[in-house]
Amino acid sequence: MKAAILSIGTELLFGQITNTNTVYLSRRLNMLGYDVMYHYTVGDNPDRVKEIVELALEDCDLVITTGGLGPTQDDLTKEMVCQVMGDELVMMDEVMEEISAYFEKLGRPMTDNNRKQALVPSRAKVFINGEGSAPGFALEKDGKYVICMPGPPREMTCMFEDSVMPYLQSMSEDVIYYRMLRAFGIGESDLETRLMDLIDAQTDPTLATYAKEGECSLRIASKRRDLSEAKAAVDDMIEKVDERVGEYIYSYDDEELVQVVCRKLMERGLTLSSAESCTGGRFAAAVTDIPGVSAIFDRGLVTYSNEAKMEELGVKRETLEKYGAVSEQTALEMAEGLKRVSGSDVCVSVTGIAGPGGATDTKPVGLVYIGLVYGDKKLCRRIQTGDDSRQWNRQYSLLSMLDMINRNVLS
Amino acid sequence: MKAAILSIGTELLFGQITNTNTVYLSRRLNMLGYDVMYHYTVGDNPDRVKEIVELALEDCDLVITTGGLGPTQDDLTKEMVCQVMGDELVMMDEVMEEISAYFEKLGRPMTDNNRKQALVPSRAKVFINGEGSAPGFALEKDGKYVICMPGPPREMTCMFEDSVMPYLQSMSEDVIYYRMLRAFGIGESDLETRLMDLIDAQTDPTLATYAKEGECSLRIASKRRDLSEAKAAVDDMIEKVDERVGEYIYSYDDEELVQVVCRKLMERGLTLSSAESCTGGRFAAAVTDIPGVSAIFDRGLVTYSNEAKMEELGVKRETLEKYGAVSEQTALEMAEGLKRVSGSDVCVSVTGIAGPGGATDTKPVGLVYIGLVYGDKKLCRRIQTGDDSRQWNRQYSLLSMLDMINRNVLS
Repeated sequence: MKAAILSIGTELLFGQITNTNTVYLSRRLNMLGYDVMYHYTVGDNPDRVKEIVELALEDCDLVITTGGLGPTQDDLTKEMVCQVMGDELVMMDEVMEEISAYFEKLGRPMTDNNRKQALVPSRAKVFINGEGSAPGFALEKDGKYVICMPGPPREMTCMFEDSVMPYLQSMSEDVIYYRMLRAFGIGESDLETRLMDLIDAQTDPTLATYAKEGECSLRIASKRRDLSEAKAAVDDMIEKVDERVGEYIYSYDDEELVQVVCRKLMERGLTLSSAESCTGGRFAAAVTDIPGVSAIFDRGLVTYSNEAKMEELGVKRETLEKYGAVSEQTALEMAEGLKRVSGSDVCVSVTGIAGPGGATDTKPVGLVYIGLVYGDKKLCRRIQTGDDSRQWNRQYSLLSMLDMINRNVLS
Repeated sequence: MKAAILSIGTELLFGQITNTNTVYLSRRLNMLGYDVMYHYTVGDNPDRVKEIVELALEDCDLVITTGGLGPTQDDLTKEMVCQVMGDELVMMDEVMEEISAYFEKLGRPMTDNNRKQALVPSRAKVFINGEGSAPGFALEKDGKYVICMPGPPREMTCMFEDSVMPYLQSMSEDVIYYRMLRAFGIGESDLETRLMDLIDAQTDPTLATYAKEGECSLRIASKRRDLSEAKAAVDDMIEKVDERVGEYIYSYDDEELVQVVCRKLMERGLTLSSAESCTGGRFAAAVTDIPGVSAIFDRGLVTYSNEAKMEELGVKRETLEKYGAVSEQTALEMAEGLKRVSGSDVCVSVTGIAGPGGATDTKPVGLVYIGLVYGDKKLCRRIQTGDDSRQWNRQYSLLSMLDMINRNVLS
């Protein structure tokens, strides 16, 4: 089945916002077994919406639109889709009730414009908007489908997960089951090489690898008549993948590394503190992005200057002078000092050369040391990122800190 | 002049990467006075590339493509564009020399595939790729233009800034001059309202406002026969804007707030430290994203727990018990304690309720206090974001900290 995605919104054509809806929908549609052929974007212009929907339906079985359903835009997107699909708009009472309930919950008055949002095509399968006022819908004609959803990402993704995905799945006699594995410490090409025969031989389940900012994902999907069959096929493939690259996999459920680490720490009631130099607070910021982490995260000391390392963490002046701030010795003294001041169960430290400046003859940009103190364990990991991008080096250092905790404390 | 942007790359259709090229090009083209009418994305498929280029040229005067020029994709994008524009590919010696020089610089051998990259349309204006091997080019037919650029964002943006922008400007007899102003502390609708008469009356210079994550941008552009005329018109408008909303504007050159603050601190040789609670290290991470900031940034203490606030910063237990961790008193004691331990010229602190949990009867999610100690000044700012998004509250708190330094230390 071929699919196209049409984003409607003048703000996209101005470059005011990044089109994350299309990324999300592309992933989901690919997972559901669709071939996404085209992405289109047009402004809030009915003629161009109509033109592109017609064009996309020539090639594709499914066209998903986002945006153009807001109260101030009247119902022109809906009207245009009706023209293309041979239907007409009608007021649906149950939709109106949902919209009224939404405004009641907000405690805001409903305007005439809002009432217009209850207009939907007479033959449509309507999707209620749990996060806003504009409903979405699906409309079929001659075996081809147009699905219209609101543009705000939160509204769109909730509607897709809750209503559109089950709808698309119900259209197929087959059931799709997939798992998304995440790995750290192995490059995408290395991962592919080790799984090449499985990837080459794939029919069902399918395997696909993705790379993203120092991490890899591996999607394993199966499409069968029966859910338990699909699950068994996926689990069987996961076992094979595990034999080859299991040591790098940190999640079998598409969880981010920082989520995995914080969840496990919270489950086990282990407290955490960090001492950062080159990452400059990124570790603490990533950890404290997780709601509820205050139960286990005590403090993060960003000791950027040598003075701060000595005063806050008790790193010895001799160590800094003899081995330098970027050294195994300094990393370990940072973690040990952090243990003294915080008393946290898990103390992690990092010092490195993020670049672009700061390199010496013996210490290149991208050299990073990570220290860890946990119980009796005192460990240090040396990394050479081989890259001169400050952003990349800081991001990779952050992931390495999390990986080191995951392997040495939580495995 | 109407423009369309065509992104070529199967990885975009899989949702593996976010299309940032289109955002960048949309902004630039709008600034240059083009109306961007369509965004299209297709995979690495010559027929669909040709189909969309032909389609886009029906409506538009300019089509910009990105991607599809890599060495492994042969020259199919180029071939397709030649077919549409009635030209043929030829080997250009000067392009070959540039590609050879690129590989020599990298110390890597050149393959036959790379040599193919020197094939360009015979009538093309060629743009050398300073960051990669694939050249770009512009091709004209009957007053309509197709411009092809490589897909990797760094290659594309460098080529656009260095070559394509001057080329587009040279096609016009007029010169475009613009300034991008950035503001904090005023909402986009409030900004628009205060400037409404100027926006409504605009012919040249033009005014446009944009909102982004708690900040606003204001673009003022003028298109004239003469650069000095355009500059004078823009400067004159800036003066009018300044009279209305000058107090909110922190940059007249599209600099981010964190860049403005760090640049000024570095220029003045003022040292900085931070003590964070609800932002959890975001401030330190943002500041240390700036290369060279180690000259002035001493330390950042993320005192997440009450113990950390007392031990690291000397916040009094009575203060925490009487007023709570989220209070003016605690924010000030954090900044004062930070001054004692760091001795930095500028000491900033933050404590608040980021959400989603943590609210009490008197302290709602989104309540944030920022403390500042600078010389004899001891200041505290109370913020009520009115939002329950953790991400937003943390981001807004970060910007408020920077704004407080900018206003009270650097103005």
